[in-house]
Amino acid sequence: MSELEVKQLLDRGERYRALRDSLFTGQYKNDLGDLPLDVSRLYKMSGALSESQIEVVELDATDLAQAIAKKTYTSTQVIEAYLLSAALAHSATNCLAWFFPEEALERARWLDEQLEKTGELVGPLHGVPISVKDFIMVKGISQTSGHIASSGFIPEEDAHIVSILRDAGAVFYAKTTMPQSIMHLETDSFLGVTSNPFNCNLTAGGSSGGEGALVGARGSPLGITTDIGGSTRGPAANNGLWGFKPTAMRLPKGMKGIMPGADGVAGAIGPIAHSLRDLDLFCRVLLDAQPWNQDINIPPMPWSPLTLARPIKIGVMWEDSVVRPVAPVRQAMREVVYQLRAKGMEVVDYPAYPAAEAWTMIKRLYYLDGAKKLREMLDGEPMLPLTTWITSNAQSQDIGSMWRLVNERDVFRNAYTKFFRSENFDAVLSPAAPGPAGPHGSSKYWSYTSFWNLLDWPALVFPTGHKVAPTDHDDAEYQGRNPEETEYYSSYSRDKAIGAPIGLQLSVPRFEDEKLFAVAKQVNAALAR
Amino acid sequence: MSELEVKQLLDRGERYRALRDSLFTGQYKNDLGDLPLDVSRLYKMSGALSESQIEVVELDATDLAQAIAKKTYTSTQVIEAYLLSAALAHSATNCLAWFFPEEALERARWLDEQLEKTGELVGPLHGVPISVKDFIMVKGISQTSGHIASSGFIPEEDAHIVSILRDAGAVFYAKTTMPQSIMHLETDSFLGVTSNPFNCNLTAGGSSGGEGALVGARGSPLGITTDIGGSTRGPAANNGLWGFKPTAMRLPKGMKGIMPGADGVAGAIGPIAHSLRDLDLFCRVLLDAQPWNQDINIPPMPWSPLTLARPIKIGVMWEDSVVRPVAPVRQAMREVVYQLRAKGMEVVDYPAYPAAEAWTMIKRLYYLDGAKKLREMLDGEPMLPLTTWITSNAQSQDIGSMWRLVNERDVFRNAYTKFFRSENFDAVLSPAAPGPAGPHGSSKYWSYTSFWNLLDWPALVFPTGHKVAPTDHDDAEYQGRNPEETEYYSSYSRDKAIGAPIGLQLSVPRFEDEKLFAVAKQVNAALAR
Repeated sequence: MSELEVKQLLDRGERYRALRDSLFTGQYKNDLGDLPLDVSRLYKMSGALSESQIEVVELDATDLAQAIAKKTYTSTQVIEAYLLSAALAHSATNCLAWFFPEEALERARWLDEQLEKTGELVGPLHGVPISVKDFIMVKGISQTSGHIASSGFIPEEDAHIVSILRDAGAVFYAKTTMPQSIMHLETDSFLGVTSNPFNCNLTAGGSSGGEGALVGARGSPLGITTDIGGSTRGPAANNGLWGFKPTAMRLPKGMKGIMPGADGVAGAIGPIAHSLRDLDLFCRVLLDAQPWNQDINIPPMPWSPLTLARPIKIGVMWEDSVVRPVAPVRQAMREVVYQLRAKGMEVVDYPAYPAAEAWTMIKRLYYLDGAKKLREMLDGEPMLPLTTWITSNAQSQDIGSMWRLVNERDVFRNAYTKFFRSENFDAVLSPAAPGPAGPHGSSKYWSYTSFWNLLDWPALVFPTGHKVAPTDHDDAEYQGRNPEETEYYSSYSRDKAIGAPIGLQLSVPRFEDEKLFAVAKQVNAALAR
Repeated sequence: MSELEVKQLLDRGERYRALRDSLFTGQYKNDLGDLPLDVSRLYKMSGALSESQIEVVELDATDLAQAIAKKTYTSTQVIEAYLLSAALAHSATNCLAWFFPEEALERARWLDEQLEKTGELVGPLHGVPISVKDFIMVKGISQTSGHIASSGFIPEEDAHIVSILRDAGAVFYAKTTMPQSIMHLETDSFLGVTSNPFNCNLTAGGSSGGEGALVGARGSPLGITTDIGGSTRGPAANNGLWGFKPTAMRLPKGMKGIMPGADGVAGAIGPIAHSLRDLDLFCRVLLDAQPWNQDINIPPMPWSPLTLARPIKIGVMWEDSVVRPVAPVRQAMREVVYQLRAKGMEVVDYPAYPAAEAWTMIKRLYYLDGAKKLREMLDGEPMLPLTTWITSNAQSQDIGSMWRLVNERDVFRNAYTKFFRSENFDAVLSPAAPGPAGPHGSSKYWSYTSFWNLLDWPALVFPTGHKVAPTDHDDAEYQGRNPEETEYYSSYSRDKAIGAPIGLQLSVPRFEDEKLFAVAKQVNAALAR
């Protein structure tokens, strides 16, 4: 590719970015001036939202749906509040890749008319705004897949997941940013860097970082994300939210194919939200629609909530033996374990999994083609540093070596699950990452989340309420026992992470998604403040 | 590989074959002299079995289990009858790869003692003999995977599927032949060629041809087979039996890995038997054991029989548009459709699927590595003609082209299934092959069965009772519309196929295995003679 062609591509990226910026006009254009590091409550502090609009954006999706059903608010009132709040969040964190208030308002008005006319809700999500990760197709809305060559694609159809949510009454209004190769646990692309609303010096996480920042700043009650190494759970943890990565293929697909057919590690689509019950609502609506009738890859397993009547047994993995969590994470773990035990749960130490082996294995499985397809997709766009980094491990495999790797993965999955079952655990509690959101450009150790992708175990991240504080131990003296740990601790600074939320993670074996929710429900009740 | 090394390998094959032959001594050694072409009732005609032993081998597995439970027969009496009958079937068709009467008798005596002592059955298969395709691991029993280099492997553990059946009370006594590369729809290897007991000039089918011949000749009530292109269903159809290929991964695994990790087309393990209820029994026992707790690849879907209370709608695909079925198959199709309609079922014409496209696609997916791994496994063993033939289509793919192929497969699966669902069909009825069992070496058109592997739809073969007869139209004038058809018809001869049973096939969408059984139950009732 010639220099000229690269320049032309970059110019195209600039034009798309300018077009995106031009969508924010009138009441959606914010000139915020100097901001504090914590912009997570800008919707409250800016004066842009009325009292009742502030009330609206502080509801979770479940309450929102009920409030609309009870006619406390109209769908139009709800989306008006969210449009303002989303534009504010974007101004502060750069979390939106596209914004379409007119279409959203028109849809909300239609929903209001329907309710007025028929007295019936269109569906269980009647009037609930839902934000969508950029590469998930929404009919008629321009999208990208995080790189310039993909920008400007306008789908003629909704993705399967979007069509079901739309049929259930959802209102779409924003597409959210994602990183260049999708494969960053941060969010940086030709559309810029997405910051963490709780501390703008930090990353929102990735690859669903736009969702994390937007939902975290209450610019959305519920977001559609994807996760192949932590892309739902990282942003959830970093932004004080709930995030759920189901067993792969349980929920219907949505992405415009990035590497279709590449299922050495299968990605999963899942929700980010403000409450556990919202995650449940999301899954219930999707599976009640029996999506397996449209997509033969989805196993016909209805969403079947269950209750664990007996005392549950949780294995607690304090650290993964490669990168020790930093002090505020260790402290959050201790507090949670204390509270669970105080409520009578059996919480016993769980051995560190073979993280180094798993991390090596999954990095090979991601880019079996030596990242050739990625390079083709980028089409000359210069790689951002985290793209260069993740592809630096990519080794091109031949079919035979791929079969060996896939088989090693399957053997590993079963061996690990066997231990878990032999001790009758209900779930594993672990950190969601070695630390809170890191400084931009630093997120290189994914194994706390990617381990569960390798196993295809469902995993859920929950907020602990704990945030990094000046009173936390600063870990400055810790040297690290290996290169990954040394690198991680060299980038971590307690003082620069003040205010960053700490999320933790629960995991259960493949296909036991509903059991994960039953465990999370008990954990949530035990932690209720 | 040097000529000397090849000779050493072939010598090793000869020694293994001699060892296998030496297992048949005493009452299991048969000098049968000249035999008729139809040896399927040798157990009755030879005089080797007593009256009551003949009664035993004419029961299906369900009746057999009940007879043992009611103490009509002991487990020892049952296995004694089957050992004699199996040895006879082997003498006539070369269907056994290994034979271990002493272990079987010891096991049967133990089962009898248990029942005597406790008054309880060990499990639902107490005393039921089960034969096993050679590469499925039975603890302590020598096996091969159809080629010399694999011969003599003695597993230290049962395969998962074998261990569950053993726990349920099954008695193992024989391993059955399979072809050189597993990938023939016939059965020919260094252990010789396996013939069809209904007409020894014809193939038993493959790759589970040893099972087909053995069960067909009533040397076994129930066999464990595998199917990645028709390997369960071909032998079932060719030998007048019921055969079931489930959705891949619903039943627990058994094979010593041949190409582990190669799941472009996923193989399925399934039963061959004398009745539909035996297929059901097999699945029920396996899934009642909750095998997903041991193998995370198995979806946790219990075996949940269902009844269709409403009239069912069957799409009938008379032919696949590439190779027209021969006259006795067309006649069997017409008769079955007539009977189903006479019983009030809605049976409507179903369009031919895109067989040529599917056949090209699946042949590519089988050997993505250009058959490199297969060549490595053969380790210098000269290829048999059908191995040379199937690998002649093998093109080595790189990872990127494999991803494209896998994606094309998924798109194809959904497009095809969409049509089926749009018309509210319950199942597709189709031939199991263009004709009955062919002459040895002729089976090169798999698409009637492999099509459902490509889709991963469950499919079931049932016997029609129809056999090729001198009164059938002989199709001698038919020229064929394309190279596949011309080749097929050049190898087919009605006169050489006299006595060959005709089986037909039912298929339903992925994961609807129990619905397939519900449909088959109604079809079976409608055809009851």
